[in-house]
Amino acid sequence: MEAITFDKISQLLAENDNYIVLMHKSPDGDAVGCAYAMCHMLRDMGKKAQPLCGDEIPPLFSVVSDNLPPQEFEPGFIISVDLATEKLLSGAALEYAGKIDLCIDHHGINSGFAKYGFVDPESASCAEILKKLFDSMGRKITPQIADGLFMGACTDTGCFKYSNVTPETHRIAADLMECGADSFGICRRFFDTKTKTKLALEKRMLETIEYASDGMVAFICITKQMIEESGATQGDLDGIAGITKQIEGVRVGITMKEKDDGEFRISVRSSDGVSAADICREFGGGGHFAAAGCSIRGSLEEAKAAIIGASVRAVEGAAE
Amino acid sequence: MEAITFDKISQLLAENDNYIVLMHKSPDGDAVGCAYAMCHMLRDMGKKAQPLCGDEIPPLFSVVSDNLPPQEFEPGFIISVDLATEKLLSGAALEYAGKIDLCIDHHGINSGFAKYGFVDPESASCAEILKKLFDSMGRKITPQIADGLFMGACTDTGCFKYSNVTPETHRIAADLMECGADSFGICRRFFDTKTKTKLALEKRMLETIEYASDGMVAFICITKQMIEESGATQGDLDGIAGITKQIEGVRVGITMKEKDDGEFRISVRSSDGVSAADICREFGGGGHFAAAGCSIRGSLEEAKAAIIGASVRAVEGAAE
Repeated sequence: MEAITFDKISQLLAENDNYIVLMHKSPDGDAVGCAYAMCHMLRDMGKKAQPLCGDEIPPLFSVVSDNLPPQEFEPGFIISVDLATEKLLSGAALEYAGKIDLCIDHHGINSGFAKYGFVDPESASCAEILKKLFDSMGRKITPQIADGLFMGACTDTGCFKYSNVTPETHRIAADLMECGADSFGICRRFFDTKTKTKLALEKRMLETIEYASDGMVAFICITKQMIEESGATQGDLDGIAGITKQIEGVRVGITMKEKDDGEFRISVRSSDGVSAADICREFGGGGHFAAAGCSIRGSLEEAKAAIIGASVRAVEGAAE
Repeated sequence: MEAITFDKISQLLAENDNYIVLMHKSPDGDAVGCAYAMCHMLRDMGKKAQPLCGDEIPPLFSVVSDNLPPQEFEPGFIISVDLATEKLLSGAALEYAGKIDLCIDHHGINSGFAKYGFVDPESASCAEILKKLFDSMGRKITPQIADGLFMGACTDTGCFKYSNVTPETHRIAADLMECGADSFGICRRFFDTKTKTKLALEKRMLETIEYASDGMVAFICITKQMIEESGATQGDLDGIAGITKQIEGVRVGITMKEKDDGEFRISVRSSDGVSAADICREFGGGGHFAAAGCSIRGSLEEAKAAIIGASVRAVEGAAE
């Protein structure tokens, strides 16, 4: 992949036409926001452009995904946004694997799959890169583009609270508000709204909470029965693995989810020198130091005892 | 109260000494952050300065309140920050009622109690005003000052998500990060941390949730027994009235809390054209259109039936 500058991207966008803008599977706010913002910008430049995701765009993102009428054309130039690797393409987007002309991304682990690429791991969101690109191109950021980029910028930073936030993140948010982004509406939708089914599921989950190692290990379980009885959807489950990590004093937070085939899928989040990856490796899983996953087969009680046991040993073996 | 400029404030701060900086009772992040930031600044200018709150500063704010050693002196000049009226003074701060020299505040309802005043209702937090004041004075914002102001700026905006956020709010956050504010640590503490007792209380509360009017009215109850059994503190109760308002589709969110004397204290939040104040007025209470309160005496079942009944009538009487 040839690393290129904003000037070269600007030139490519001016010279080509009939753009497909790809999103990764299970698209998040940054992927959807960037794909739609890019298509709005290209159409404002007089080009044809269509976002493409192999999965359905969740209704949660409709504030951005609902205001771009579909266009049909013979694809001429393929762009990916917020896509770290082609392995994350799905469905109808898969046919573009190996054919991506331009990749714009903020993942340091980007696998360099495109002809041309602009990857900036210092950006908290891909939306930050697009904002700077559009500014460098001297293009007007319309309210629709601003909403897409703001959605990306705020969802990838947990509403400006994660460690990836930089002064530039805030300055970009300020600029986007001035371009017409609905900061309040977007933040309210993503960070101040809960569905009744999610709340019902949370109630059931909180009933399963258990602590070990003087409260340094926290465990929460979601069974198939809870999901069915609460009426929860996949959207309601998003972010639920984060709850145990929010608890004061917890160094290992475990969220265990019952799968269809009697298997338990386990997500482990850790802090303060405890390795979640090491804990998960005991069960054939893995991941990052502070966020990892594994699967355990057996009864609920067996799986729970196994993962709590491994977590207690990890906490007690780690330095304070 | 004489409205004055930043230049005049700068002159007053240079000319005087032995400052007391007052906070309101039940101090929040903006009050504590501003009082400590102002005292750091005054000490950096070679002055004596001491924050004063009639109530104890909650441990939650220790990241800011722990790093200013106490000073003793004969008070010479009295400043209030984030104080809308002297009625909000308590305890040891009460002796300064009627004697406040300078008031810096962002509440439009400020009652004008001081000799000199600077009130800017456009600022989302009092911290935003202090940031601009310190800049206009040409003073260096140290990391300690930046932490105090950042705490004020983020807590008064719900981590940059409320409708009071302006582009300036974000630009000030960016500047404060560059001055050394611990954005991640502060946001994590206030917006990504739950105590075990709060979680235990939430679980009990979620068990009491009831809906009426096709889910447009939501009711939650907190009894004395729940508070005792969960071990929850006053800090755990903060913000809990907001939970029902977060629920998708809810136009009236009711949080009912049992008081010591068998009375029920009720907080009502409303949206979409329903008046919380009207609902509460039926029971001798009142407040703002979208956030009001009242008290009802009787059994839990009686109080619940009364407030739900009034809310259902309000929702069904209001336009869609």
